[in-house]
Amino acid sequence: MADLKSTFLEVYSALKRELLEDPAFEWTPESRQWVDRMLDYNVPGGKLNRGLSVIDSYKLLKEGMELTEEEIFLASALGWCIEWLQAYFLVLDDIMDSSHTRRGQPCWFRVPKVGLIAVNDGILLRNHIPRILKNHFKGKAYYVDLVDLFNEVEFQTACGQMIDLITTLEGEKELSKYNLSVHRRIVQYKTAYYSFYLPVACALLMAGENLDNHVVVKNILVEMGTYFQVQDDYLDCFGDPETIGKIGTDIEDFKCSWLVVKALELCTEEQKKLLYDNYGKTNPANVAKVKALYNELNLQAEFAEYERKSYEKLITSIEAHPSKAVQAVLKSFLAKIYKRQK
Amino acid sequence: MADLKSTFLEVYSALKRELLEDPAFEWTPESRQWVDRMLDYNVPGGKLNRGLSVIDSYKLLKEGMELTEEEIFLASALGWCIEWLQAYFLVLDDIMDSSHTRRGQPCWFRVPKVGLIAVNDGILLRNHIPRILKNHFKGKAYYVDLVDLFNEVEFQTACGQMIDLITTLEGEKELSKYNLSVHRRIVQYKTAYYSFYLPVACALLMAGENLDNHVVVKNILVEMGTYFQVQDDYLDCFGDPETIGKIGTDIEDFKCSWLVVKALELCTEEQKKLLYDNYGKTNPANVAKVKALYNELNLQAEFAEYERKSYEKLITSIEAHPSKAVQAVLKSFLAKIYKRQK
Repeated sequence: MADLKSTFLEVYSALKRELLEDPAFEWTPESRQWVDRMLDYNVPGGKLNRGLSVIDSYKLLKEGMELTEEEIFLASALGWCIEWLQAYFLVLDDIMDSSHTRRGQPCWFRVPKVGLIAVNDGILLRNHIPRILKNHFKGKAYYVDLVDLFNEVEFQTACGQMIDLITTLEGEKELSKYNLSVHRRIVQYKTAYYSFYLPVACALLMAGENLDNHVVVKNILVEMGTYFQVQDDYLDCFGDPETIGKIGTDIEDFKCSWLVVKALELCTEEQKKLLYDNYGKTNPANVAKVKALYNELNLQAEFAEYERKSYEKLITSIEAHPSKAVQAVLKSFLAKIYKRQK
Repeated sequence: MADLKSTFLEVYSALKRELLEDPAFEWTPESRQWVDRMLDYNVPGGKLNRGLSVIDSYKLLKEGMELTEEEIFLASALGWCIEWLQAYFLVLDDIMDSSHTRRGQPCWFRVPKVGLIAVNDGILLRNHIPRILKNHFKGKAYYVDLVDLFNEVEFQTACGQMIDLITTLEGEKELSKYNLSVHRRIVQYKTAYYSFYLPVACALLMAGENLDNHVVVKNILVEMGTYFQVQDDYLDCFGDPETIGKIGTDIEDFKCSWLVVKALELCTEEQKKLLYDNYGKTNPANVAKVKALYNELNLQAEFAEYERKSYEKLITSIEAHPSKAVQAVLKSFLAKIYKRQK
């Protein structure tokens, strides 16, 4: 496992080296140094789950056959494309949200001398993906499908981000806009496609599969991604800050969280008034009132029930799939997230 | 001509309609309305030269053969992809430059309730390009080349923007960084590829050409794009504000303009000190001193000489090209910009 990660990180260095010598641009020492530092700061510092899961999935699809060095390299390169995509979104999201820290360090745009140059750096990160794909997959039969896949998933993520931004900000804290269907839509587009579907879709393409034949797999993964985000929303309030590594602020930030949406669904008119009066305020007294209401409504039990049902539904769908290899891929994803505490 | 433009604008409406029904996303009335307004605000309001030149170029490549309705539609769609690309860059550039107005109206991020959501809108604009390409070119033999072309040119533009940003801002007004080679590099990557090469490359692909066989055409167009930007720099200071429709502020903005670069090349040590002391300041007295120096150094004559030489060199290269049709395309570009006053 540690070995897999170190191989994966070696591929990062190889890809970076290539990008810094890209013949489509006339590099200067300053521009090369800028991109080098920007990549190291933003790309490899996360948990790398999305990227690593391409290699895992591909292995499972090959049903235990030993992978060649080339296959490991290519699956890793696709994994890194997803990490690059993630870095691109995070750099720009942090600017839009005026965030302060990310992965335990200041957000890139807060680094001295970077500022709004970070917008263009986000664009550069995004542009590196087709460069990597072209450098390593141009000759493959699935090259066009790969490029189309990344384009479609990026489009869906940007659309998810749009509805999140226009429901959360534009309405100037209008809680009546929040409901389960809005929540599901934001989560599905903003997170599930690129975090859950994309890694498996990459592995399927590498294995020679036609994605049109895998709509069921897509639906299961999007469902799993939605479940994952609901856990995230739950842990933001009820998780152990020590374990999850941050103190949640969804209530203060007026987030369209599964918890507030569920509370709105279950509450009386009086409780609704309390929510409207206290949600989205930074004062700890307001936050405490919201949390007290969550407890009153027994959202912990609601979540446990949601988790149980989601798991059951997912397992049933997975076991209905005709391919044991595909089942193994889906089950490995589910096992990683079921009842997670962080 | 007015007819061509109105056909072109009809294609815009058709493309927009399609994007607002894109089945890859579950639209809500609010999100559809947001994108509709965002597109109308940012995409069709420019001079449309880049977009229209795809159709012009394609016609010339077909040597007077009547174009079918489908050909007109497809060439227009590619033209609009370039306009979309331009809109994407402008929306984000305006944020990075803290600009106020664009095309006679407030910059998109300055519109009430938009703000930094404009970053994501820029991303959406960018994401519309592969959607349009997929909707209309997926079956074509040149589909992959088209997607690769747009990716490569976008990458080059983002690299040009990067060197512009890191030379102009990072160095905290360090005039010693400016020279002709830095200027050429910024201009070539930031402007010439997407404004001059891209429209012709689109037309060549539609005409069934392999772009690998047209490196000479690319070089000529990049040269022409460089000459175009030098004119822009010149007109910013010496053009008639009435005619060009804006008052230049390159001196105040500490821009790496051809004029300041030429001045640095020609000036004495004493004059250089004057430049260092006065360039990049908003006070009209400082600006006036810089302009007086430009006059002293006779930059108007320098520019006239540059223009004459560029034209001569371009005409010679164009006439050396084996294809009369390609010559016609290149000459039509050159005729549009030679000795332009706006």
